[in-house]
Amino acid sequence: MKIGIIGLGLIGGSFALAAKKHALDVDLYGEDKNEEHLNTALELGIVQHTLAPKMYAQMDVILLGIPVDAASACVIELLDAMNDNALLFDVGSTKASICEKVALHPKRNQFLATHPIAGTEFSGPSAAFAELFVNQTQILCETHKTRPDLLEWAMQFFRSLQMQIEEMDPHAHDQHIAYVSHLSHISSFMLGKTVMEKEEDERAIFGMAGSGFASTVRLAKSSPEMWAPIFRQNKKNILDVLQEYISNLEQFKILLENGDWEQMRLQMKKINAIQIILEGIPERNNNKN
Amino acid sequence: MKIGIIGLGLIGGSFALAAKKHALDVDLYGEDKNEEHLNTALELGIVQHTLAPKMYAQMDVILLGIPVDAASACVIELLDAMNDNALLFDVGSTKASICEKVALHPKRNQFLATHPIAGTEFSGPSAAFAELFVNQTQILCETHKTRPDLLEWAMQFFRSLQMQIEEMDPHAHDQHIAYVSHLSHISSFMLGKTVMEKEEDERAIFGMAGSGFASTVRLAKSSPEMWAPIFRQNKKNILDVLQEYISNLEQFKILLENGDWEQMRLQMKKINAIQIILEGIPERNNNKN
Repeated sequence: MKIGIIGLGLIGGSFALAAKKHALDVDLYGEDKNEEHLNTALELGIVQHTLAPKMYAQMDVILLGIPVDAASACVIELLDAMNDNALLFDVGSTKASICEKVALHPKRNQFLATHPIAGTEFSGPSAAFAELFVNQTQILCETHKTRPDLLEWAMQFFRSLQMQIEEMDPHAHDQHIAYVSHLSHISSFMLGKTVMEKEEDERAIFGMAGSGFASTVRLAKSSPEMWAPIFRQNKKNILDVLQEYISNLEQFKILLENGDWEQMRLQMKKINAIQIILEGIPERNNNKN
Repeated sequence: MKIGIIGLGLIGGSFALAAKKHALDVDLYGEDKNEEHLNTALELGIVQHTLAPKMYAQMDVILLGIPVDAASACVIELLDAMNDNALLFDVGSTKASICEKVALHPKRNQFLATHPIAGTEFSGPSAAFAELFVNQTQILCETHKTRPDLLEWAMQFFRSLQMQIEEMDPHAHDQHIAYVSHLSHISSFMLGKTVMEKEEDERAIFGMAGSGFASTVRLAKSSPEMWAPIFRQNKKNILDVLQEYISNLEQFKILLENGDWEQMRLQMKKINAIQIILEGIPERNNNKN
């Protein structure tokens, strides 16, 4: 079977490696607008062949693993070009926009919207590894709109990678993911910014940084080319969540200003319950890092 | 030599275990106002004997490893009680308050203010382990005020634990640590709060959380009993830093509202340089977790 990977980044590259590992008979074709990434992916054996638009019709499956704005922009053309038995799935961090885009396409039932909750703060094909998805959640949206045989193949494929499949409405997805992923990225970027602005005067400051700081700022290494489009596509939800976060910080600041230590302590005690929630989050797979 | 550990938490307990491992002839005495912690520390062999106030005069070294408000409250009494050749050092995350407190004490030169940049989000004696401090920074304040022989012993001891020693003014310490530690904790607690408030309506939300979320919220598991007093003692610095952080979040929100994607992308690109800074932070020692 011929699988085309459009976008040979961390996610696309890792799906290619996982497909090679878990599926018996796959021939992997890849394309990336960054020529260096394409060459690296070929050199590392992530894909075996270069994919070109004129070959789209020969693919059995196409994975769309590019930034969400670019994915929304090309999904119609891709569906147009594919043969009538092929499956197209995307892996973007927003789902409402792309689902809306394909809604009226005659080949809508050959499309599946997915969001693998997996990743590291690294990007590009050299960050990819086959085990990235083990025990991680794969969210599928609007599965009833995908042709049963193609959906079945996709679910078997994700299960063979040991992913946990969850189904979700695309709008609910975008709202919830703003809380548990998009906000964390903004918080991390702005934490990095705040400290780096200070560091312009005080170069000694980072000698004092420990693992706690590293943990909260890790996501500030993420790719702006990937994240700016996500923030754009999920603007409304993110604005709401960001305002709630800022309000909570403002309220904490008032507790601090007023010296309301008992209230502060009680609030933190309540938040400690996050520990139980965090225990339910699968360990990060980071063989590569 | 007799070492007394007041406060058998993660830091006090780990120093006790490290002392036993690296010093040939130590007899470890411990006390904790939490009786359960004391019993656990005795059972785990973290200390061999129970320490009581009437025995303070027999100690050669006393480590003060309790929340910073309690440490400031008892440091005078402790110095009063110690013999004339003993060393007292604290390990709190704020330094100006305790240095001010002891400034005029006749035994000021038997005190050393330290801040080991080491820790996990776990607390209590069962979280302690001997290797916590390996390759981590130990900040010393006002070393010129400590008697040279006692300072020399302390520095040898910290070096034997493979710590990197840095000297710093206590006020500079408190200002800088607000950026690279205290703010990270507040950011993490408020992130946890924001998401947990949402989760009251939407229990499904945490199935979507991945390692990025876990990383940014990890510190929200920290002990309120330890952290509320730190925020209290470093109130002024933290208010400044927190305001800078909120302003950066507000500015990011404006970029989002205005759809200024190119400015947003450029800003994130600049913040990506945090990667170089993070490479300089020693790996977390977390044998225990």
